[in-house]
Amino acid sequence: MPKQVEFFYDFTSPTAYLAWRRLPAIAQRTGAIITYRPMFLGGVMQTTGNRPPGTLPQKGKWMAADLQRWAKKYNTPFQFNPHFPMMTLMVQRAAQEWVDRPDFEKYLAAIFTAAWQDQKNIADKAVLAEVLTGAGLSADDFFAAAENPANKEKLKAVTDEAVARGVFGAPTFFVQTPDGEEMHFGQDRLDFVEDALSRE
Amino acid sequence: MPKQVEFFYDFTSPTAYLAWRRLPAIAQRTGAIITYRPMFLGGVMQTTGNRPPGTLPQKGKWMAADLQRWAKKYNTPFQFNPHFPMMTLMVQRAAQEWVDRPDFEKYLAAIFTAAWQDQKNIADKAVLAEVLTGAGLSADDFFAAAENPANKEKLKAVTDEAVARGVFGAPTFFVQTPDGEEMHFGQDRLDFVEDALSRE
Repeated sequence: MPKQVEFFYDFTSPTAYLAWRRLPAIAQRTGAIITYRPMFLGGVMQTTGNRPPGTLPQKGKWMAADLQRWAKKYNTPFQFNPHFPMMTLMVQRAAQEWVDRPDFEKYLAAIFTAAWQDQKNIADKAVLAEVLTGAGLSADDFFAAAENPANKEKLKAVTDEAVARGVFGAPTFFVQTPDGEEMHFGQDRLDFVEDALSRE
Repeated sequence: MPKQVEFFYDFTSPTAYLAWRRLPAIAQRTGAIITYRPMFLGGVMQTTGNRPPGTLPQKGKWMAADLQRWAKKYNTPFQFNPHFPMMTLMVQRAAQEWVDRPDFEKYLAAIFTAAWQDQKNIADKAVLAEVLTGAGLSADDFFAAAENPANKEKLKAVTDEAVARGVFGAPTFFVQTPDGEEMHFGQDRLDFVEDALSRE
């Protein structure tokens, strides 16, 4: 069985976006596969009592500068989204269906790019339809998936599983190592993720 | 004028301890001086509305593992303190007087080591007396400094200054760069501190 890193993310998280940009190269270097776990960050926050960093104005101000520094460090195109925090129930419900499709990575790239490069409001149906169509994906498929009760249930189940395993924010990574399961929180912990994946 | 990094810290912070261990080498590599700014983290938290990470049990659990990973990465002796969070008014008031003395670094090392290697309760007078005496420092001097109203005022002024400049937690670093003042938060941002100090 190949090594894997589970990537719990939500499109509303700028640090999940930064992690998504770096993760494929890490997986390639370590011979691991990425298992995408789209969760609903709002639910995680509510259940665990966590708050977005920007709830504190002083922390929000530092974080805005810090995100730009990380983007620069890894040459990642990045613009903060004026619509943040975006309501992601629609995109994350649809993701439950897309996650098993061959064009999932195209879906992931379309939404992450819209949110964190192009400053689009990914909670807006008209905007989403344009983004998906522009990426060669079916907007009709998307809205059907987003409204499918089975996908609502799946999103709830993934979110509950995340919290049960210790997740309190995004992005969060799990790696199975010889010493047991390791959980890492934050795009700024990707070096630890790579270390864990590199261990025999 | 030599380059400098201002280091706002409180002994109660394990990440400030980790930063204190790495900072001298960074200062040496970049030809900078460290300006120690002992503040009262409890006051910063209260004024900014911030909460210690351990307030969330899920975050506290991850952070305990994360601190061990950082300690291992840099070969830093580290043990979590069972007395955490320690009340640091005494040690930080005394620090206001010590900060200008030639034996300040001895003071810093004695208290940080007691707190984050030896699991001592640095809020306890008898424990502190033993720690200071063991380091060749005068416990009498210490208690006089801790109770001196001028030092209480100084600690309040440093803490107020920190908040006014954007500090919301510890450790926090300020570096003056050609592009203006940069603030970095967290021992996990020391690479950014070093980058800032390395810039012409």
